[in-house]
Amino acid sequence: MYYIGVDIGGMSIKIGLVDKNGKILYDLAFKTEKVSPEKQTEKIAENIFKLLKENNIDRSEILGVGVGCPGTVNPSDGVVIYADNLNWSNFNVKRLLEKLTGFKVQIGNDADVATIAEILFGSAKGYKNAILITIGTGVGGGIVIEQKLYNGTKGVVAELGHITLIKNGRKCNCGRRGCLEQYASATALIRQTKMAMRKNKASDMWKVCDNNLDNVNGKTAFISAKNGDKTAIEVVNKFISFIGEGLLDYCNIFRPDVIIIGGGISKEGSYLTDKIYNYLKQRDFGYPGSPETKVITATLGNSAGIIGSASLVF
Amino acid sequence: MYYIGVDIGGMSIKIGLVDKNGKILYDLAFKTEKVSPEKQTEKIAENIFKLLKENNIDRSEILGVGVGCPGTVNPSDGVVIYADNLNWSNFNVKRLLEKLTGFKVQIGNDADVATIAEILFGSAKGYKNAILITIGTGVGGGIVIEQKLYNGTKGVVAELGHITLIKNGRKCNCGRRGCLEQYASATALIRQTKMAMRKNKASDMWKVCDNNLDNVNGKTAFISAKNGDKTAIEVVNKFISFIGEGLLDYCNIFRPDVIIIGGGISKEGSYLTDKIYNYLKQRDFGYPGSPETKVITATLGNSAGIIGSASLVF
Repeated sequence: MYYIGVDIGGMSIKIGLVDKNGKILYDLAFKTEKVSPEKQTEKIAENIFKLLKENNIDRSEILGVGVGCPGTVNPSDGVVIYADNLNWSNFNVKRLLEKLTGFKVQIGNDADVATIAEILFGSAKGYKNAILITIGTGVGGGIVIEQKLYNGTKGVVAELGHITLIKNGRKCNCGRRGCLEQYASATALIRQTKMAMRKNKASDMWKVCDNNLDNVNGKTAFISAKNGDKTAIEVVNKFISFIGEGLLDYCNIFRPDVIIIGGGISKEGSYLTDKIYNYLKQRDFGYPGSPETKVITATLGNSAGIIGSASLVF
Repeated sequence: MYYIGVDIGGMSIKIGLVDKNGKILYDLAFKTEKVSPEKQTEKIAENIFKLLKENNIDRSEILGVGVGCPGTVNPSDGVVIYADNLNWSNFNVKRLLEKLTGFKVQIGNDADVATIAEILFGSAKGYKNAILITIGTGVGGGIVIEQKLYNGTKGVVAELGHITLIKNGRKCNCGRRGCLEQYASATALIRQTKMAMRKNKASDMWKVCDNNLDNVNGKTAFISAKNGDKTAIEVVNKFISFIGEGLLDYCNIFRPDVIIIGGGISKEGSYLTDKIYNYLKQRDFGYPGSPETKVITATLGNSAGIIGSASLVF
């Protein structure tokens, strides 16, 4: 018997067939389009059946569908209350997807489900207290306390990208200003990269992106920084300082055993985590006399979303 | 049988005789002096015996002494690792106080013990998830998860005043820059009040402090704001915005049922909490679609420190 995990991101939607051990047997992905939530859900249903058909899996072998959604979600009734990156508000994705597929559906916040996956099968396994930060289109997170996901009283917790880094700073999609997400997301890194490139026409980053700003992505500055490009190193270091300041806050609040970096940017691996760790260490992990906090990448990588979503219906 | 609670603050040290029900029977207070930690501990021991003598309590009736200390403490060995407001570092207050008094001594972080008192006997009673913020000389805090104090793995948690509000902002005693404590403590309010008074010689605040800047305290701006003084209202509103932005962070992270304001500033009562609540409400409690978070004052007030410290040896 299998479970389906649907990981809805701001840029792409991934669907996977998962077994009880958290292994993804088959998966597919398609672009997130700027359509209504209803249309988007129809696309998801179509792709679920496509995945089953392509791999000769009968629908009777499926025990349920778990969906990880960005933003504010209510797992108890299946409503996405507010997801700025998707332009969804008060949409019951559970009800529509159950109707379209006939499967039992459970939803959860994307960062929450990624955290659950890391607790069950990944990098958070064995740590008592951990903070997961996902750095992608936005910045999300999950809080692990005593090896369990912290869920609060009424959900909508661990909006870890929405803490103030600069009071009255950049306007954030959440309505506040100066949120961590505005400086430490992949979106922010791309903006910071382009800005530095415009100022420095000789930067190696121009080569990396074929002299076309439209080709800039979250990897551009990292590639050129590894090539020794001074401008790129500055971009990366500044980006690390934004992530670092946010994480120092989480060190001071939780003093976690480990900080786990997930999301697209985590592909930079130890090049990224070493820099973050050094930033934290040089600043006493936030407070003089504090015990050390490890910094690692999420081992499940981009699979955490699919696996964690699927585990909602385990 | 009784317990002794010692509440060490940056400005004063309070000592109380507490019963099993968290009631303070007798107490005294004396000024925190700029002396060595050893000298300070001797003073504490002297005042413990003074309290017992003045109230005809025999030492055989005392079951132990609990001490709440600001800063980074290690309850397991009794060492104050780092307390910026006291200028203490790596000082074993437990060992010396046990030697000087002959009583069993336990120590805890001041904000942690205040939180324990509020959970056991005060405002946090009955709430599942709560955040306590103490606004005094500094800004401290305690995290209540599932009706228990969150202690992390190795302590030194809930340094809630040490989250960034303004990256590269005012230098903080903790070594970072732009911490909440630098803008939302009583110390910061006094600085902000004086600054506004210097700019506005006609402000009612000059009357309130007898035309002497040295008389400015954490109440000055609040008194004049209630008198309708425009400058004072601006000071209070700005101060509320600093507290508010910090608390919006904690709403987004924990989505607590309640935020409990403690410390000296909490004496302003509903005048303060109503303003904070409105600030949070106008900003969707940090994130659109979030459930509401109550804002109340710590019911035990300044007694929480003594009661919570005493409860360490219950």
